[in-house]
Amino acid sequence: MNKELVIIGVVRSSIKDLSTAPKMEDAPGAVQATIEIDPLYAEGLDSMQAGAQLELLTWLHQAERDVLKVHPRGDKKRPLRGVFTTRSPFRPNPVGLHRVTLVSIKGTTLTIEPLEVLDGTPVIDIKPKP
Amino acid sequence: MNKELVIIGVVRSSIKDLSTAPKMEDAPGAVQATIEIDPLYAEGLDSMQAGAQLELLTWLHQAERDVLKVHPRGDKKRPLRGVFTTRSPFRPNPVGLHRVTLVSIKGTTLTIEPLEVLDGTPVIDIKPKP
Repeated sequence: MNKELVIIGVVRSSIKDLSTAPKMEDAPGAVQATIEIDPLYAEGLDSMQAGAQLELLTWLHQAERDVLKVHPRGDKKRPLRGVFTTRSPFRPNPVGLHRVTLVSIKGTTLTIEPLEVLDGTPVIDIKPKP
Repeated sequence: MNKELVIIGVVRSSIKDLSTAPKMEDAPGAVQATIEIDPLYAEGLDSMQAGAQLELLTWLHQAERDVLKVHPRGDKKRPLRGVFTTRSPFRPNPVGLHRVTLVSIKGTTLTIEPLEVLDGTPVIDIKPKP
């Protein structure tokens, strides 16, 4: 099977700069953001309702993929550890996983919160929280 | 950026048959399973410890990718709805997201539970639960 991801939408956010972006969704700085879903995938939103608790999967397109150890939260005073024991965006497959609330939905535009990723981040999936 | 996923490992499970596989990890039938991580990515496991609560991301390689509406849990009596309001494996990017406990780790072999995916399912990421 083809392992190439398709981009189903894009994040629109006031967070524009990687150097000042918050590190996790619970950090100060996560904001309300919108997701513009590609109309090609509009049918997949059928029955989606405001208030839903969602798991949003993004593709952290500015992350490095050949890093296997990191200092947690980029803090050089903390010892290096395997990326699979951290939520660093640097990892072989930089998939971001975010718990968000759907504030509203209008057509293929979803307003969600909180989200800490950069404006322009590709969206690859949306799932209801189990 | 390249959007091709790399396979970091594979699930080894007693679940061999899609037709009888459980639908969700909390369904009867989810089992203890092992993950064999490719030695190429062994360093990414550094500091991983038994007992960890993990989020495992898999690539549901037998799923159909061109489906945008499904009957929830395959029950034809339930009306069709958008795949993004369900956790169906049928979706544009069939990434499986599983909460598991790390029972033990020995080298690059992780024993985890519970997991409902088929033997041979590719693994694409492991993250600590936030």
